[in-house]
Amino acid sequence: MEDSGKESTKTAGKPIRCRAAIGREAGEPLVIEEVMVAPPEAHEVRIRILCTSLCHSDITFWKMKGPLGYFPRIFGHEAIGVVESIGENVDELTEGDMVIPSFMADCGECVDCKSKKSNLCSKLPFKVSPWMHRDETSRFTDLKGETIYHFLYVSSFSEYTVVDVAHLTKIDPAIPPNRACLLSCGVATGVGAAWRTADVEAGSTVAIFGLGAIGLAVAEGARLRGASRIIGVDVNPDKFEIGKTFGLTDFVNPASCKDKTLSEVINEMTGGGADYCFECVGLASLVHAAYACCRKGWGKTVVLGVDKPGAQLSLNSFEVLHSGKILTGSLFGGLKAKSDIPILVKRYMDKELQLDEFVTHEVSFEDINIAFDLLREGQSLRCVIWMNK
Amino acid sequence: MEDSGKESTKTAGKPIRCRAAIGREAGEPLVIEEVMVAPPEAHEVRIRILCTSLCHSDITFWKMKGPLGYFPRIFGHEAIGVVESIGENVDELTEGDMVIPSFMADCGECVDCKSKKSNLCSKLPFKVSPWMHRDETSRFTDLKGETIYHFLYVSSFSEYTVVDVAHLTKIDPAIPPNRACLLSCGVATGVGAAWRTADVEAGSTVAIFGLGAIGLAVAEGARLRGASRIIGVDVNPDKFEIGKTFGLTDFVNPASCKDKTLSEVINEMTGGGADYCFECVGLASLVHAAYACCRKGWGKTVVLGVDKPGAQLSLNSFEVLHSGKILTGSLFGGLKAKSDIPILVKRYMDKELQLDEFVTHEVSFEDINIAFDLLREGQSLRCVIWMNK
Repeated sequence: MEDSGKESTKTAGKPIRCRAAIGREAGEPLVIEEVMVAPPEAHEVRIRILCTSLCHSDITFWKMKGPLGYFPRIFGHEAIGVVESIGENVDELTEGDMVIPSFMADCGECVDCKSKKSNLCSKLPFKVSPWMHRDETSRFTDLKGETIYHFLYVSSFSEYTVVDVAHLTKIDPAIPPNRACLLSCGVATGVGAAWRTADVEAGSTVAIFGLGAIGLAVAEGARLRGASRIIGVDVNPDKFEIGKTFGLTDFVNPASCKDKTLSEVINEMTGGGADYCFECVGLASLVHAAYACCRKGWGKTVVLGVDKPGAQLSLNSFEVLHSGKILTGSLFGGLKAKSDIPILVKRYMDKELQLDEFVTHEVSFEDINIAFDLLREGQSLRCVIWMNK
Repeated sequence: MEDSGKESTKTAGKPIRCRAAIGREAGEPLVIEEVMVAPPEAHEVRIRILCTSLCHSDITFWKMKGPLGYFPRIFGHEAIGVVESIGENVDELTEGDMVIPSFMADCGECVDCKSKKSNLCSKLPFKVSPWMHRDETSRFTDLKGETIYHFLYVSSFSEYTVVDVAHLTKIDPAIPPNRACLLSCGVATGVGAAWRTADVEAGSTVAIFGLGAIGLAVAEGARLRGASRIIGVDVNPDKFEIGKTFGLTDFVNPASCKDKTLSEVINEMTGGGADYCFECVGLASLVHAAYACCRKGWGKTVVLGVDKPGAQLSLNSFEVLHSGKILTGSLFGGLKAKSDIPILVKRYMDKELQLDEFVTHEVSFEDINIAFDLLREGQSLRCVIWMNK
C-alpha cells in the first residue's frame, strides 16, 4: 500500500512532539523548547504552521503582568498553516488544506454570523482567554507535563497548534505563505476597517492617526476604495515615505502643529474635516482628536487602537448632538473571516491589494526574539517568522 | 379695482404693528405688548402666525441667565403661518402660502443640503444666535424703539414674524394648523430620528430614554417603521399609557430597577440589547446607559437630548472598540426641512402619522404663560397656542 501523502498518515490521533517558542515570564525572551501538542478534539483542527508574523498584541500580552499575564504561554496569532488532522464534527476542512487562523470566530450559525451587520460571533465570543474556545482547556504541555496557555485561540509560535474550526479559513494555496499570514490579523484589520466598518466611498477624504501596520493597512483599504485624499498622522516623519506606497497623499506631524491644533490643521486641509477618521494607536486623547477632525453631518470616526484597560473616551455632549458625527469601533476590521479573507487573498493574487510592502523583515524560527526587538524598536512593520527555513 | 384678497395688499413693504409675547427677564412671565415688525429684507419672508406650540428649548432659553440669555426676546419656534409678504430674491414662496418655519436652515445650495447624508446646512449653519441669519440684525422693535432679539430664527410668539426663506417650508394648507405646527420642531425631530438618523428597520427593537414629546415621537417613528418592540424608559410610570398610543410595547422605570442596572434589565428583555437606543433627556449619564443597552455588533445610540453646555460624555474605550456599537447625534432628527416636512404632512393626512395625540392642551395667545406652566409641570406634551382665537 502506497503512502497516501497526507499530512496525518503517521500522526493523526496522537500527540505531536515539536518545537515551540514559549513565553515563560513576562517580558523575558521566548525560549524554544519541545512541547507536546494534543490531537484535536471535536470541532478542532491541528495545523502545521508554515509561517507566522508578529503583531503588537503579541508584545502587549507578552509584557503583561498581573491577572491577565498568563505564563507559560505560546504567543502568536498571525499565521498560515496546513491542516495536519481534524477532530470530530469538522466537515469544512480536510488534511492538507491551507488555512489562515484568526482570533475572531466565525461559527456561521449564530445571529451575528448570519447577519450582514456584525462580525462579533455570539456563539464563540471574543474573550481575552488563555484557553481553547469551547472547553476552556489547553492542548499544549511541556515535556515535564506542565500545561502551557494558549493565546488568542491561535498560538502560532509553535510548529503545530490546535485551533477551533470556527477560527480557521480555508484559502487558495497559491498565495505565498509569507504574504497570506498578514491577512490573519493586522493588515486584514486595517483594510477591513476601511472596507467593511467605514465603507469608505470613492472620492472621499480619510485621516489616519498612527501609521503602524494597521494604520497603513487602513490607507491601503482606502486607496483600494478610491479615496481622493488620505492624510497620515504620526510623530515619525519617516512614515510618510512608506505611507505613499499605500496611497497616503498628505502627512501631518502633530509635533509640528505649533500655532494650530491638530484638528484645526486637518479641518483646514480638508475644508471642514475628513469624511473618515481612523484611530490606530489606542489613546483616548487621540480618539478625541480624530473625532474633532471629522466632517460634520456625516463624518465617521473608527476606533481600532487598543487602549489601556479602563481607559475612558470623553466627548463633548453638545458636539455629539450638533455635529451629526458617528463614532464606532471595529474588531478585526468588521471582517467575517470565512467569507472576507478569501476575498482579500484573491485581491492580492489579482495584484490589487498590496501585501509585499508590509513585510519589512523575515527571520527563521530560531530568531523569533529578533522579531520582537524589531517591532518594539519600531524598525519593522511586519516581520515574518518562518517555522522551517 | 377689486381687492386682490392677498395678505399683503395693505401691509407689504411697511412695518406691521402687532401683538407679541415678550420675554423681558429670565424666568419672568412673558408680557404681551405691541411691537413693530419690519418688512422682510432680501431672502426673507414675513409671515402671519396661525398657531405655535411650546417646546422645551423655549423654556431652557427663557430661563437662561448669563451670556446666552438675551432679553428682551420673542421666543417660540414651533409654528405654522401664512406668508404676508416676501423680500427680494424669494422665488419659492408667495403671499398666502402656508408655511412651517424651522430652526434648521435648508438652503438647497450648499454641499450639505445637496448631500443625502447631512441636514446641517453649511451656508446658514445653526448657531444659538439672537439675530436674523444673514445680516445678524433684528426685525423687531418695541414701541419705544428698543431692539427685541429673535429666537432660533423663528420667534413665533408674535402675530407676525420675519423668517429667512431657507427656514421656511411650504406645505399643503389642508392640514389643520394645530397639527402642522408640531412638525416645526419636536415631533418632527423624534420621528425623523427614528426614520432618517437611525433608519429603524422593521422587526427591530428600540429603547427610548425619556418619554416627553420627542421621546414619544421617536416611538411613533419607530412604530411607523415596523419596529417589533419599543421600550420606553421614564421615571414617570404614567407615560406608559400615553406611550402605548405611539407603539410602546414595554416600559421600564429606572427607579424600579432594584437588583439590576437599567442596562441589565434592557439587555435581558431584548436578549442582548436593543438595536436602537435614543437618549431624549439630555443627560450624559443617560447617554452612557443608552449605549450600554445597545446591541453589540450593530446597535446604534442616537443622542437627541440637549445637555448643559460643556457636559462631557464618557465611554469605555474597550467597549467602543470591542462592541462595534455606533454613537451619533441628531439635530432636527436628521430631516431636511423642505423635502421631509411635506412628507410628514402627507403621512398625517393619509392617517399614518399620529399627531393629534401629542396635543394635550390648547390655549389662546393671551394665556401663553399657562402653556409655560403646563410644560414646566410636566402636565402637557404639546400645548398649542392660538394667535387669534
